[in-house]
Amino acid sequence: MTATSDVPDADRLARVALSCAVEPGDLVTSRLVADVGPRKALESQLEPKARSSLHERLREVDPERQLELAARAGIRFLVPGDPEWPRGLDDLDHVEPARTGDDGESPCFGGTPPGLWVRGPLALTDLTGSVAVVGSRAASVYGVEVTRGICGQLALARRPVVSGGARGIDFVAHDATLRSGGVSVAVLACGVDQVYPEHNRPLLAHLAAEHAVVSEQPPGSRPTRLRFLARNRLIAAMTRGTVLVEAALRSGALNTVRWADQLSRPVMCVPGPVTSYTSAGAHLWLRGGGAILVTGGADVLEVVGRPGEHLVEPPRGPERPRDGLRGVERTVLEQVPAGEAVDADAIARRSLVHVRDTVRALERLHHKGYVTRVVGGWRLAPGAG
Amino acid sequence: MTATSDVPDADRLARVALSCAVEPGDLVTSRLVADVGPRKALESQLEPKARSSLHERLREVDPERQLELAARAGIRFLVPGDPEWPRGLDDLDHVEPARTGDDGESPCFGGTPPGLWVRGPLALTDLTGSVAVVGSRAASVYGVEVTRGICGQLALARRPVVSGGARGIDFVAHDATLRSGGVSVAVLACGVDQVYPEHNRPLLAHLAAEHAVVSEQPPGSRPTRLRFLARNRLIAAMTRGTVLVEAALRSGALNTVRWADQLSRPVMCVPGPVTSYTSAGAHLWLRGGGAILVTGGADVLEVVGRPGEHLVEPPRGPERPRDGLRGVERTVLEQVPAGEAVDADAIARRSLVHVRDTVRALERLHHKGYVTRVVGGWRLAPGAG
Repeated sequence: MTATSDVPDADRLARVALSCAVEPGDLVTSRLVADVGPRKALESQLEPKARSSLHERLREVDPERQLELAARAGIRFLVPGDPEWPRGLDDLDHVEPARTGDDGESPCFGGTPPGLWVRGPLALTDLTGSVAVVGSRAASVYGVEVTRGICGQLALARRPVVSGGARGIDFVAHDATLRSGGVSVAVLACGVDQVYPEHNRPLLAHLAAEHAVVSEQPPGSRPTRLRFLARNRLIAAMTRGTVLVEAALRSGALNTVRWADQLSRPVMCVPGPVTSYTSAGAHLWLRGGGAILVTGGADVLEVVGRPGEHLVEPPRGPERPRDGLRGVERTVLEQVPAGEAVDADAIARRSLVHVRDTVRALERLHHKGYVTRVVGGWRLAPGAG
Repeated sequence: MTATSDVPDADRLARVALSCAVEPGDLVTSRLVADVGPRKALESQLEPKARSSLHERLREVDPERQLELAARAGIRFLVPGDPEWPRGLDDLDHVEPARTGDDGESPCFGGTPPGLWVRGPLALTDLTGSVAVVGSRAASVYGVEVTRGICGQLALARRPVVSGGARGIDFVAHDATLRSGGVSVAVLACGVDQVYPEHNRPLLAHLAAEHAVVSEQPPGSRPTRLRFLARNRLIAAMTRGTVLVEAALRSGALNTVRWADQLSRPVMCVPGPVTSYTSAGAHLWLRGGGAILVTGGADVLEVVGRPGEHLVEPPRGPERPRDGLRGVERTVLEQVPAGEAVDADAIARRSLVHVRDTVRALERLHHKGYVTRVVGGWRLAPGAG
């Protein structure tokens, strides 16, 4: 919308037709488009094939009318070559496809989508440096709290947050980013004019009005399980890295993480209690070694930032008074027992310090609150250990 | 006690003298012993040195009397070469020493101890394959629960659990192991005839009566901060690997973990909520990449076991009814939307299945409870997604 594109109209219209007729993640289509371009890919698929009605559906599409209807609804269609096209999506043609189920016979899906339908004023060029924050719909209070913290910090660092517009962690990721004044984009499994889930209607309306909602599905499409799965690859591909906050072992969010890993984008997982099934997916990835443990927004920024941009201070515990001690005082203090008291002679013998110097050091340590004088000698003051 | 030793009496007595007069972790002593043997090491340290009273303390020790007093109290003294000597301790002469503080000027400590004082009927040879389980004194309810689970499973797998006899995670590690019928050993920072902390008197008495308590400190010694630090290296060295359950950023348990890492023993950390300061130490090690994430006893056994001995089943979520579907039913189900209903024609077009076959599949799916028939067509049944 903002910049002129050099993409020929015929290419764009062929991509509209493919986008409207082909299910997302269709590998035959994405490979044909990559090999021979969208027009020839469309032509070859218009020929009738046995046991497939794809050619009929392609013939039914009127791409110009689709574009016109979309434009009236404030929806634009982006294709590779457009200035706004998120370049990361092109990587999807170069990674292993996924399967829709755990068994070897489930269908495969993947590939770069023919185009992207976008609703909202945000130029997708602004998504450079964005971070995906995903997780379970069934989020725990803990997951919600951590998501708020991470997205608040990403917003302050002007990192757009991309998520799936679902309930649970997705909702909180968008919501917390917006509340902190950040930029957020939802990638949907349905058309960008649709609302799913109904519960998130106000959020999705706000994103469409102020930021952007994105889908490879044409307007009017409803979500299906396959479309949810296929959508996840776009979230991983459009962002600099993916943060998994909470996911049970079969959560769809793990599918997003798998795509990020395949795409060589960093996978960041938030640990949680091992007793919480909503953290089991994150622990699986952390244990497998493919993911980086993150404890908050600062850790995420360190991972996705340019080298040196967001260095995390190594975490340190609180300073202890003992830290300031040096020399004889320190040496003597090491030998003062925590339990029963001992006399200065014994402390001197242990510390290899002359008795007179030991007694002086003990008196200074007593004055500073490190040791207590009791019947029988000296012992550590409470809390000084 | 159980097997005869070939160690000359003079060597043993020299080690008793060193053990009684030298602070634990004294590197000068351990290097001398490693280089010239215990008798020459003792001789060279009996010479008066400037600003040190060590030679006086060494002269005060009567090793034969110490051994006799110890034996009367049921305490034996083990040295390298004894059949019961834990061989892992010898590795301490081959790793970098540690410092007693974070700054560069704190004193160094490390090295193999001159000997080990042991009280209890357990032969330390039985510690082959043992696991260290350590953590904060200030344990959370979560940490206690996880420690109980891990130690219960280690006990069932006949893996002895070694810990430090302290409050918090240490106490629970010993206690849970004993309650599950397992073997446990406490390595103390004081003499094995001493009780510290007082709170653990019954536990330590039980371990001394039924299993073993161990220390490099001679009987009668009181604990000091340096002795706690030095003790930690023995826990790491005597075991096959160290599990860190919970530790704040400056917990002494991190020191044990550091020793395990230096000794090339696996470091296993239990993750927890990122909002819990008692898990910050574990997350530091997991994030740094030096530790393996463990979620329970099964994970620990997989790490410390011989190859193939304890294979962990990859965790899986609950089976879903959808998993059993194949062929046309599965293909059709992928296209049934979760929200608003669509008619069979639309589902057939999307699934590329003939309308008649689609309708039949939908009816079978309806019968099996996957889809619901509503006004306007079909949609997913609640819970079938």
